[in-house]
Amino acid sequence: MLDLPFLPFCVLLGGLGFVCVAFVSAWCQHWRGGFAWDGSAQMFNWHPVLMVTGMVVLYGAAALVYRLPPAWSGPKLPWKVLHGTLALVAFGLAVLGLVAVFRFHNHNGTPNMYSLHSWLGLATILLFSCQWLAGFSAFLLPWAPTWLRALYKPVHVFFGSTILMLSVASCMSGINEKLFFSLKNGTMEYKRLPAEAVFANTLGLLILLFGVLVLGALARPSWKRPDADSPDSCQ
Amino acid sequence: MLDLPFLPFCVLLGGLGFVCVAFVSAWCQHWRGGFAWDGSAQMFNWHPVLMVTGMVVLYGAAALVYRLPPAWSGPKLPWKVLHGTLALVAFGLAVLGLVAVFRFHNHNGTPNMYSLHSWLGLATILLFSCQWLAGFSAFLLPWAPTWLRALYKPVHVFFGSTILMLSVASCMSGINEKLFFSLKNGTMEYKRLPAEAVFANTLGLLILLFGVLVLGALARPSWKRPDADSPDSCQ
Repeated sequence: MLDLPFLPFCVLLGGLGFVCVAFVSAWCQHWRGGFAWDGSAQMFNWHPVLMVTGMVVLYGAAALVYRLPPAWSGPKLPWKVLHGTLALVAFGLAVLGLVAVFRFHNHNGTPNMYSLHSWLGLATILLFSCQWLAGFSAFLLPWAPTWLRALYKPVHVFFGSTILMLSVASCMSGINEKLFFSLKNGTMEYKRLPAEAVFANTLGLLILLFGVLVLGALARPSWKRPDADSPDSCQ
Repeated sequence: MLDLPFLPFCVLLGGLGFVCVAFVSAWCQHWRGGFAWDGSAQMFNWHPVLMVTGMVVLYGAAALVYRLPPAWSGPKLPWKVLHGTLALVAFGLAVLGLVAVFRFHNHNGTPNMYSLHSWLGLATILLFSCQWLAGFSAFLLPWAPTWLRALYKPVHVFFGSTILMLSVASCMSGINEKLFFSLKNGTMEYKRLPAEAVFANTLGLLILLFGVLVLGALARPSWKRPDADSPDSCQ
């Protein structure tokens, strides 16, 4: 494979993550009326912003911690703590994102959890909570035996990528759904592709690109910590 | 990792793939008025059936060809031909699926290619066409040099999984979108979760499970052909 260095890639990826957060914020601010925390449509707007920031961008950053060359030498514990902390912050943002949409629905008498987007999104966050707890118990608490770590590590790695894939799929279905809800009238209909639709569809493709680049970076053998296949230990 | 044998897994996965095709067909037959090829809503119904059958189930089968133990020994060419043929049939079904939705739109004066689902779906199929052509040129035609195969193989493998992930995300957004279109009135509104909505949401989760299981099988080291990391040759 071409010998692409990790750090310049990482800077580009960080830039793309920033653009994703800027795009979703600009969409909600410019076209959807901005932000509030009062059960209104402005409260709903926190939902996409928090989900993209937490479940895609921060989650992606957490996933790539062990690919940073400084993480390859010395004790692993500080990197584990960073990985777990970033994932926990991502999870916290996702929970706030759920609160935003549930309170908006409840305030407006809209039922919760009926669309496939909501089923997929909740399944993703439930899986993420299991992943975080299992990862914390197996790799950060001191009492997990080595054989259990060795057994669980490939499962943790696989579900790490899977949850990011589910997050991206949730974002795609959520943006699509929101545009059908919001763009209904006259020249602003979704099917007439007004500026907002082009902007939010582009946001969807940028999120997708970010997710694919993170998965690509995770899969690249030369960017893996040399002892990545050992169950590891350093507490 | 637990020593799960491939063949029983494969039988279960085949069963799940069959259930996905049966569910999407039953949804379109029972709730959406059945099938036709005349530009009507019955013609649209071929779109989800052909996409799930081609881009998820057959695509998944094509991806797993090299994991079959009989493919591990002897010449690779027959397995390459099987892999390429299954992928080509999947691609053919996807093209028919596109014809179904474009003709339905054109017949009814609905614009094409405005929703994020359509952008995502078309990007997936364009990527798949590049993947097939590049794979055919590099691995089935005799003139590609070994260094090119070695360089391209991990890229082909990565995009193989990526395209499946994009297909699943397209299915999620498409099923979600179709249910919002179709379930609008009174007690049949999507948000009241009528039987059709539960059924089609369940279909979405089954497709997701199928995709995750295929990606998991592809990632499992003990199921890889022992020489999987060599660029290979046997024409």
